[in-house]
Amino acid sequence: MTTHLFDTVDVIRAKRDGRELTSEEIAWVIDAYTHDHVADYQMAALNMAILLNGMTRREIADWTRAMIESGERMNFDQLSRPTADKHSTGGVGDKITLPLAPLVAVFDVAVPQLSGRGLGHTGGTLDKLEAIAGWRAALTNDEMMHQLDTVGAVICQAGSGLAPADRKLYALRDVTGTVEAIPLIASSIMSKKIAEGTSALVLDVKVGSGAFMKNVDQARELARTMVDLGTDAGVTTTALLTDMSTPLGLTVGNALEVRESIEVLAGGGPADVVDLTVALAAEMLAGAGKTTAEDDIRAALNDGRAMDAWRAMIAAQDGDNDAALPVAAEQHVITAPRSGYLTTLDAYAVGVASWRLGAGRARKDDQVQAGAGIELHAKPGDKVTAGAPLMTLHTDTPERFDRAIEIAEEGVVISDDAPTNSPSLIIDRLA
Amino acid sequence: MTTHLFDTVDVIRAKRDGRELTSEEIAWVIDAYTHDHVADYQMAALNMAILLNGMTRREIADWTRAMIESGERMNFDQLSRPTADKHSTGGVGDKITLPLAPLVAVFDVAVPQLSGRGLGHTGGTLDKLEAIAGWRAALTNDEMMHQLDTVGAVICQAGSGLAPADRKLYALRDVTGTVEAIPLIASSIMSKKIAEGTSALVLDVKVGSGAFMKNVDQARELARTMVDLGTDAGVTTTALLTDMSTPLGLTVGNALEVRESIEVLAGGGPADVVDLTVALAAEMLAGAGKTTAEDDIRAALNDGRAMDAWRAMIAAQDGDNDAALPVAAEQHVITAPRSGYLTTLDAYAVGVASWRLGAGRARKDDQVQAGAGIELHAKPGDKVTAGAPLMTLHTDTPERFDRAIEIAEEGVVISDDAPTNSPSLIIDRLA
Repeated sequence: MTTHLFDTVDVIRAKRDGRELTSEEIAWVIDAYTHDHVADYQMAALNMAILLNGMTRREIADWTRAMIESGERMNFDQLSRPTADKHSTGGVGDKITLPLAPLVAVFDVAVPQLSGRGLGHTGGTLDKLEAIAGWRAALTNDEMMHQLDTVGAVICQAGSGLAPADRKLYALRDVTGTVEAIPLIASSIMSKKIAEGTSALVLDVKVGSGAFMKNVDQARELARTMVDLGTDAGVTTTALLTDMSTPLGLTVGNALEVRESIEVLAGGGPADVVDLTVALAAEMLAGAGKTTAEDDIRAALNDGRAMDAWRAMIAAQDGDNDAALPVAAEQHVITAPRSGYLTTLDAYAVGVASWRLGAGRARKDDQVQAGAGIELHAKPGDKVTAGAPLMTLHTDTPERFDRAIEIAEEGVVISDDAPTNSPSLIIDRLA
Repeated sequence: MTTHLFDTVDVIRAKRDGRELTSEEIAWVIDAYTHDHVADYQMAALNMAILLNGMTRREIADWTRAMIESGERMNFDQLSRPTADKHSTGGVGDKITLPLAPLVAVFDVAVPQLSGRGLGHTGGTLDKLEAIAGWRAALTNDEMMHQLDTVGAVICQAGSGLAPADRKLYALRDVTGTVEAIPLIASSIMSKKIAEGTSALVLDVKVGSGAFMKNVDQARELARTMVDLGTDAGVTTTALLTDMSTPLGLTVGNALEVRESIEVLAGGGPADVVDLTVALAAEMLAGAGKTTAEDDIRAALNDGRAMDAWRAMIAAQDGDNDAALPVAAEQHVITAPRSGYLTTLDAYAVGVASWRLGAGRARKDDQVQAGAGIELHAKPGDKVTAGAPLMTLHTDTPERFDRAIEIAEEGVVISDDAPTNSPSLIIDRLA
C-alpha cells in the first residue's frame, strides 16, 4: 500500500475546479485505486470531471504511465526481429488484423497482437478467430515468445498482468457513462500497448457512424493524443484516420470475416480491405525500420507468402486450417426497395443488425454465434435495381431476424443520383 | 422495486452531454438509487455531471420531489396553530435557532425545528443543546406533536424516515467532491423541509468566509433556487442573505453558545445575535400569517415570555434548566499584537480554531467537548490596544491549543485605520 499522501476528495475537487493534477497526485490516485484505497464511486466522480474538464498532455502522459506501472511490462528485446503492432479503435467489418499480422511477419518483423473480445456493435478479433476449429486465444508468455520467434506473428488474448489499473478503470467507465473521454480512451489504449513492449505501433483511428469517434476533429484529437503518448514513451507511433461510415469489406460477423480475410490472403478480397491492410503494413514496416514499397507488400498477398504465414500462425495456436468454417442455420435476404444509387449503407446500422443476429454480445459472458452476421452485396456508390439483393443476414436463431432487419433497413438510402463525394478510405495520417 | 424503465448509463450520458433530464428519468433514478438498483459509482458520476453542467428549475423541482417521495411526509394539519420553520446554511457562532424557536412560539406559531449535528468547522444545533444536562435530541413523532401542541416549539433530531434518498446521497456527495453544487444543496435542504410539512419557512443563507457560499452571487442563486422550490411546493418561503465573514455574537462552541442564547432570551446578548433573531422571527411570523412588528417581537425577549417558552421547551425534552453549563478545563487568551483597529476577525479561522479545540467533529462518530470553544472580546471595527485580550480559547485537552492558536491568529488583522465599510448583517431578502 502507498503511504496516504493525498486526500481523494481534494484530488477530485482539483479536477472538478479545472486545476491541473500534479504527477504525484496522478501516480497516487491510480495506485490507490488499483489497491482499493480509492473507492469506485470516487474514481467515477473523478472520471466524469476528467471527461468534462479535460487533461493536459502532461496529465495524460502521467495517467498512462501510472496505469503501466500498475502491472508488468513485456519485453521483446531477445527476439531476433524488431516488433510492430497495430491497434484499431474499432469498427464494423474490421477484420484487418487477420490478414495484416501474417503479412507483416513475411518481412521479418514480429507482430505481437494482443487482442480483445467484442462488446456492443463492433466485433472482437478473438471472437472472429475462434470461428476456426481448435484455435485457442490464451497463450502463456513463453508460447507467445516462441511463436514470435518461429512464425513471427501471434494474435492472442492480452494477459491479466498488463495494466490491471486500466482493466479496473475500463469496467467502471463502461457503467458510469465515462467511456467517451479522449484522455481516458487514449491512456487506456496506450497503457496496454506501451506495457506490451512493441517497438513500433500504428493506430487505425476510425471515424464515422460505425466508430467511436463520429467526426474527424474528435478522431484527429484522439490520434494526436495517442501518437504523442507513444512517441514520448519511446515507441515509434503513427496513426491513420480511416473511414467507418460504411462497413469495411463485404462481410460482418465472425466466420464470415475469417472467410473474407482468407480471400485477401489468397490475393483476392474486396479492394478496401486489401488497400487498408497494405497501408497499415507499410506503416508497421517503416516504424520497425524496414521501409517497404506498397507494391512489394501486395506481392506477398499475391504469391502465397502471406497465406503461408497465416496457416503457420493458425496452426501454432491449434487451429485447423482445413476445417470448414461454421455457417449459420438460417439466412434472410434484404432486397433493394427501389432502383437507383446506394448512397448510404450505414456502418452503425449494419453493426447493430449483425450484433442482433448473434455475432456480438451484450454482456461480457454472453456467447457469440460463429456463423451469424451479414454479407453485403452492394456498397455505397453502386447502382442497384429494385428487388436485387442488398444484404444476406445469417443467424442460428431466426427469431432474431425481425429486429435485425428493422435496423439494417434503416441504414440503407437509395437515391436517383450517384453520390457526389464519397469519403476516402484513408482520411489522414499523423506521425 | 420500480420497473426497469431507464438505463442508468443513458441518464448519466444525458446530463453529461448537457441535456435536460425528464421528470420520469429523475423520478426513476432517485427511486432506483434509494433501492440500490443504481450503484454508488453511477450516482457519483451523475452528481459530478450535475455539478458541472447544472440543472434547470424544473429538473431541480423534480429531483427534490423524488427525494421527498423516497420517504414519509409529516403533517401538522391537526395542530391548532400554524407552523413555521427556519433553516440556516451554516455558519460560525450561529446559535440563532436556540432563542428563535421559543421566541416565535410566544406568538402562537408552532416551530418544528428538525436539526442536525455539526461536521467540519460549523457547529450543530443538537451538539449545542446537548451541553444542557439531561436534554435529549431524539423524540418520537408523538412526543414531537405533543410538544408542539403544548410548548409550541421543539428542536430535535430529524427522524430517519424523512427523505432517505437525501441521506444516502449526502453521504456519497461528501466523499466524492460533489457537495458544492447549488442544485444538489438546494434539493437536499428543501426535500427535508418540505417533507417535514412546515407551512412557512425562512432560509438564512450565509455568505462569507465562514459559510459554504463565499460570495453574494452564489448565495443569492442558492437562496433563489430554494425559495422557488419551497413556493412551488406550497410552502410560504422567504430567505435572508446574511453576513458570515465574522462569527455571529461573541461565542463559538457548544456550552458557550447556549450561555449566549440564554443571555439573549433574558433581554441581553450581543446586538447582532438579537437583531438576526428578531429579523428571522418576523419572517417566520409573517409567513405563518401572523405578521408582527419587530418592536413587539423584541418585547417578548425583554419581558421574559421568550425565556418562559425556552425553559418549557428544554424541560419538555428532559433538560435541566437549573444545572450549571459545562466549562472547559483549560483556557488560553490571545492578545492583540499591536494597537489599532480590528479590521478582520475571520469566521472561517475562528470556526476551525474552535473545531480544533474540540467543539466540533472530524468524523460522524467523534464526540464533541461541551465546554470547548472560543469567547471573543473584540469584533471587527473595534479599537484595540496592544496586549489587550482578543479571544479566550477553551478546551479540556490543552495539547490542542497550539494548532488552534495558529489558525485563530491567522484570522486577525489589526490596522491603523478604522474599517471604512463593514458588511451589513442582513445583505438581502428574497421572497
